[in-house]
Amino acid sequence: MGNSQLPPPFLWNLVMTLKSGIAILFLVLIRTSPVYGEVSDPLPSWREGAAKRSLLGFVTRVTAVGAPTFVPPAERVAAFDNDGTLWAEQPMYFQLLFALDRIKKLASEHPEWRDREPFASLLKGDVERALAGGERALLEIVMVTHAGMTTTEFEALVKEWISTAKHPTTKRPYTEMVYQPMLEVLNHLRGNGFKTFIVSGGGVEFMRPWAEVVYGIPPEQVIGSSIKTKFEIRDGKPSLVRLPELNFIDDKEGKVIGIHSHIGRRPIAAFGNSDGDLQMLQWATTNQPHDRPSFALLVHHTDGEREWSYDRQSKIGRLDKALDEATARGWTVVDMKGDWETVYRQ
Amino acid sequence: MGNSQLPPPFLWNLVMTLKSGIAILFLVLIRTSPVYGEVSDPLPSWREGAAKRSLLGFVTRVTAVGAPTFVPPAERVAAFDNDGTLWAEQPMYFQLLFALDRIKKLASEHPEWRDREPFASLLKGDVERALAGGERALLEIVMVTHAGMTTTEFEALVKEWISTAKHPTTKRPYTEMVYQPMLEVLNHLRGNGFKTFIVSGGGVEFMRPWAEVVYGIPPEQVIGSSIKTKFEIRDGKPSLVRLPELNFIDDKEGKVIGIHSHIGRRPIAAFGNSDGDLQMLQWATTNQPHDRPSFALLVHHTDGEREWSYDRQSKIGRLDKALDEATARGWTVVDMKGDWETVYRQ
Repeated sequence: MGNSQLPPPFLWNLVMTLKSGIAILFLVLIRTSPVYGEVSDPLPSWREGAAKRSLLGFVTRVTAVGAPTFVPPAERVAAFDNDGTLWAEQPMYFQLLFALDRIKKLASEHPEWRDREPFASLLKGDVERALAGGERALLEIVMVTHAGMTTTEFEALVKEWISTAKHPTTKRPYTEMVYQPMLEVLNHLRGNGFKTFIVSGGGVEFMRPWAEVVYGIPPEQVIGSSIKTKFEIRDGKPSLVRLPELNFIDDKEGKVIGIHSHIGRRPIAAFGNSDGDLQMLQWATTNQPHDRPSFALLVHHTDGEREWSYDRQSKIGRLDKALDEATARGWTVVDMKGDWETVYRQ
Repeated sequence: MGNSQLPPPFLWNLVMTLKSGIAILFLVLIRTSPVYGEVSDPLPSWREGAAKRSLLGFVTRVTAVGAPTFVPPAERVAAFDNDGTLWAEQPMYFQLLFALDRIKKLASEHPEWRDREPFASLLKGDVERALAGGERALLEIVMVTHAGMTTTEFEALVKEWISTAKHPTTKRPYTEMVYQPMLEVLNHLRGNGFKTFIVSGGGVEFMRPWAEVVYGIPPEQVIGSSIKTKFEIRDGKPSLVRLPELNFIDDKEGKVIGIHSHIGRRPIAAFGNSDGDLQMLQWATTNQPHDRPSFALLVHHTDGEREWSYDRQSKIGRLDKALDEATARGWTVVDMKGDWETVYRQ
């Protein structure tokens, strides 16, 4: 019925062609109008300044067709740290808060935890004392909360937590503690042909369940730390069971190894906020082909009012060596207080 | 000078718009012409038959907008074994032939190899005797030829070899022993929004230097076995040095673990040719959401004239359990002799 009202195919195609032509003409007019430049600021949450300018300039240079600085789209790879770079990380890494929430939930099934460290202190709310047990204590927490289940079950736990849990001091959902200015950077890079990767010390299976929705980064572009898994046929169906054994730590030198093993290509841009990102930033900014621009950026947490203020002496997100190297090498350092008009995701 | 001969920007844009319109009109005319349907067979090297039909039918079902079988593009992940699935693997894995060529080249610097196994036998051309030393002998060969250099140096070695070396019996370059019908499958899937991954027991750094040119698969979509690497600052520049130590074996259960750790998403299609691919094919075809189609394909090497004929008892590319399971589960089995009009890349 509807079909009989349409023009014959050839005419229809002609109409569509003309429509395309008009649409293109319209785009051309918008793009050449002087107003367009103002409306289309790709980084509206960034105040004008050196940081914003250097980032935009870099993107312009690598996308300038015909210029010696042009980089083919396939090689436009950008690597982002997560904790403290894409979302907040205080008073402790959010993944640890996930583990603590989980321990509280599991405590009723484990009465023995009341007398056993690190669980006893955790359940009393004394995180510092619990973690005084050092790496061993941390590992015990991770193993109890992250292992002994299938990968599918763990994914469900993370999804449930991320959609319901609240941050202890801001009382906001964790996904609202993502930095708006960095979301704009991710979008601007992708809009210019970049592939954006997360390269984080956090657990890869802790980030993947929500990174696509929150950051627009698909699971295959998330690189992180991991524990070992084991293939098992359960009820005739294959599954992967998470084992209480570390597999890979994606931090410091590990970030370079993780990048090489997952991407197999050197990023031309890297974004971090701590000494754990130093090697990744070195990797992105050296040994590039002649004339090829590269870019390194550090988020400096200078805003004690809207976020947290910390750097050289911080336990979480310590920024000391990398800050010195940024000065020496001319990397871009973001002064969160001065450079960001908005901090959290809007 | 050149610029002054161009029309003013607005006129130029108008000209480009008209050109776009004409180009679109041209495309529309081609696509609606009855000849186009014949010309556009996406798998011209495949003879008509059950294998071709099942593959095309699967792609049609997952791309049918609005159908219950529709799969969103982001979730269209396809995993391909490499040796014996995308290129040949006889009389032995080509990566082993790379190692042998390399040992011959290095022999002049290692006079002691003349009396030391496995090198002594290798240099006499007796590969079987060299490999009689089992895993230890193989490992020694790999370590001498694959470790002790930076990742950049190794990449250069592979690139040089792949562009010059010839296969011992066919005398063809190895990249011409890639299967034309499988190249068409890769293209057809990508043309329908799939991401194509290699998931191979071969070394990831052996495949990445040429996989993009030969298969159209970028390095970040190549998953394979690996040795460990170490981050080092050499002459003030960071580098990764390849260590004589296994990191990960991407075979059998390892393929599922490799897929999970790199992609973090279950493929909906998997392609293999041996028992080493069985778990990957099981993984792709189970635990999918309700109504979601999945696809598993085995290349059965049945063509002793144009290629090699082997299956259940073969040392390389043994296909036994997986062949039984393919029958039991209704997976697609390609009879290379009957199903492929052309074998090698044209």
